[in-house]
Amino acid sequence: MAKYSEMSKEELEALVKSLSEEYKKYKDKDLSLDMSRGKPCREQLDLSMGMMDVLTSNDDLSCEDGTDCRNYGTLSGIQEAKVLLGDMMENHPDNIIIYGNSSLNVMYDTVARAMTHGIMGHTPWCKLDKVKFLCPVPGYDRHFAITEYFGIEMIPVQMDENGPDMDEVERLVSSDESIKGIWCVPKYANPTGTSYSDEVVHRFARLKPAAPDFRIFWDNAYGIHHLYDDRQDYIVEILAECKKAGNPDMVYKFASTSKITFPGSGIASLATSLNNLEDITNQLKNQTIGHDKVNQLRHVRFFGDIHGMTEHMRKHADIIRPKFEAVEQILEENLGGLGIGEWTKPNGGYFISFTSMEGCAKEIVSMCKKAGVKMTDAGATWPYHKDPYDSNIRIAPTYPPIDDLKLAAQLFTLCTKIVCAKKLLSQM
Amino acid sequence: MAKYSEMSKEELEALVKSLSEEYKKYKDKDLSLDMSRGKPCREQLDLSMGMMDVLTSNDDLSCEDGTDCRNYGTLSGIQEAKVLLGDMMENHPDNIIIYGNSSLNVMYDTVARAMTHGIMGHTPWCKLDKVKFLCPVPGYDRHFAITEYFGIEMIPVQMDENGPDMDEVERLVSSDESIKGIWCVPKYANPTGTSYSDEVVHRFARLKPAAPDFRIFWDNAYGIHHLYDDRQDYIVEILAECKKAGNPDMVYKFASTSKITFPGSGIASLATSLNNLEDITNQLKNQTIGHDKVNQLRHVRFFGDIHGMTEHMRKHADIIRPKFEAVEQILEENLGGLGIGEWTKPNGGYFISFTSMEGCAKEIVSMCKKAGVKMTDAGATWPYHKDPYDSNIRIAPTYPPIDDLKLAAQLFTLCTKIVCAKKLLSQM
Repeated sequence: MAKYSEMSKEELEALVKSLSEEYKKYKDKDLSLDMSRGKPCREQLDLSMGMMDVLTSNDDLSCEDGTDCRNYGTLSGIQEAKVLLGDMMENHPDNIIIYGNSSLNVMYDTVARAMTHGIMGHTPWCKLDKVKFLCPVPGYDRHFAITEYFGIEMIPVQMDENGPDMDEVERLVSSDESIKGIWCVPKYANPTGTSYSDEVVHRFARLKPAAPDFRIFWDNAYGIHHLYDDRQDYIVEILAECKKAGNPDMVYKFASTSKITFPGSGIASLATSLNNLEDITNQLKNQTIGHDKVNQLRHVRFFGDIHGMTEHMRKHADIIRPKFEAVEQILEENLGGLGIGEWTKPNGGYFISFTSMEGCAKEIVSMCKKAGVKMTDAGATWPYHKDPYDSNIRIAPTYPPIDDLKLAAQLFTLCTKIVCAKKLLSQM
Repeated sequence: MAKYSEMSKEELEALVKSLSEEYKKYKDKDLSLDMSRGKPCREQLDLSMGMMDVLTSNDDLSCEDGTDCRNYGTLSGIQEAKVLLGDMMENHPDNIIIYGNSSLNVMYDTVARAMTHGIMGHTPWCKLDKVKFLCPVPGYDRHFAITEYFGIEMIPVQMDENGPDMDEVERLVSSDESIKGIWCVPKYANPTGTSYSDEVVHRFARLKPAAPDFRIFWDNAYGIHHLYDDRQDYIVEILAECKKAGNPDMVYKFASTSKITFPGSGIASLATSLNNLEDITNQLKNQTIGHDKVNQLRHVRFFGDIHGMTEHMRKHADIIRPKFEAVEQILEENLGGLGIGEWTKPNGGYFISFTSMEGCAKEIVSMCKKAGVKMTDAGATWPYHKDPYDSNIRIAPTYPPIDDLKLAAQLFTLCTKIVCAKKLLSQM
């Protein structure tokens, strides 16, 4: 196919006309498809149904140390869950707190605590005139929602294939004391699928923040969420790297089993330095007597150990890999060589990031919606929902059945072609 | 027995001598007993083991409306859990949010949200020079810990057999705009076992707070936690009463199944007006995608309905009633008529509240501890752990096996006698 930008006005007009007829056929189908959220599909959830059988009324619900998981207590989580999630996160169990069902909740609470009480004795953020966060873009809308909710000013930093633009991160963090944090999804990033290069992690660990209470919010949501056996990304472990660099307290690392077992009923965890843990525990003891230990025990009994979890993740991969590949194939077949969009081909995670011609994303998403296909809102991957280029669209292939997904992807490419052709026409 | 205050110096000295010998025998036993926390005992936890069997890998984990409980979503909880906990709380399901495993966490988050964002558009409390809470005393230490943590000034208000001193509550709330809340355990209160009289609830609902964002924190932790079939307390439902009084938004009502199923793994709930719910949901959507719906479903399937839950609570009562009665009997046998202490005889809840002669509580608890019996710290039932009379001690009879409990109660009465006799001697 020819590049759209090289087409004449007449060619583009003819193209729009024929594509629009095709679009009308889709509209007549009354579709109701959803590629908007990074949700596991039913078959993935079924993989963990065995978890419903590991604790029965005949089982002893005690931990290895004798703690009765049914009763109150054990604020930081049961030891065997710390071991399991420690192995998952590549951190020592002593550096871990096990929480409830949502790592987003842990991140929210971490920001909330910094707002009202400050970090390790520093001024509470709510007492400061200005607090800012760096937000690598495109990024995760729910991260940005937390900082927006707390009135924290968000500064976008561009991502490339190695991670955030570290020249920019270093420049900003070292020069502005009001910059207190940065949101990172370091592996199979939401939405780009990028895994931070060794150099990027090295430079993160060696940051010299102007703010002594600057923290890296390292959301390792997809640490073991590979799509392939033979093409897996590795990233440098950030806690160890920060410690080596003399910045042991600079990072909060988050993870959960939300996309390993059940998104609504997993367990979340935080890994950080002992100093940070002490700071956090001094707050946490006022917030709760403890999280759901029975569910922690259920996870441990189900997986046994990290090898069990790894094998489990291969089954997830087997279900969702064909979905990623189907979308990538349709994108390639329909848009390859046209010069109107680019997309990522991740080795793991939950998303494909699509970058259209500038000024087209909103209209593409809108056209999809009108034909019954829900995409993540254009702009969602930027702070304040404002993508200055209006070009990034997050594609979430995991949830729909594969036939629905293919149909949705076909429609998506069709809408992309129409919107971009019209855009080019409008510029002639 | 004669009243200690009527004894001569010689009689008291002889008494202290013989009691001290008895105390020494207890010390030699190397006891390790715990009457400090309101924890269910093993037999109580065993009552809910059937909950481990209601969801298996053969079951459909969908709600009545088809929602797959395993996946993300349903921020405010599944409908059937709202119905069940609504029946438990005597509130309409539409007025309820179902949370995670801890109502304390919900209360903490409620205060935290008011601190950073204010209530229904009012100034965030962290922006005010002074925020105060009323704290009926004796009360629940974990309530007081939350307000202390947020730097909220706590003002004690005396409890009597009908609830808090409402003259004082009305006077303070109507005159001081910095008073933003009051901690209440309205039924089988922690620690007094008091249930608020109809008049007290009526007066609560008709408060005319100086602060428009004043809220009653109504922790109905023991709503269905009766000890007797034939002696049950009833309290007026506060949401309905506030609505009738033209104060529909004035109350947050909390509850959980912590002392119904498993303290570590129950479900918590909040009931409040639709205005408050909207305010809360606007925050909650930034904090989490949803709480553990599988555990909500597990509770619903286990109980079926409120009748199932009520029958379940009778089994709890059968286990703990003898423990309360054993402690009450030992208190009566050993301290009755001595004029050195009084105690409550609750119809439900988890505690007996003991009031010793003034200036003796710390020493009694300390003597118990030295002989291997852990009591709740004296002072814990007051804000800042400061009981100005040094007289209140919370007794928690549920957790220890009954023989241990009897031994602990015997020792407790012995220590009380020694400390009070010495106190009287020191005043001669």
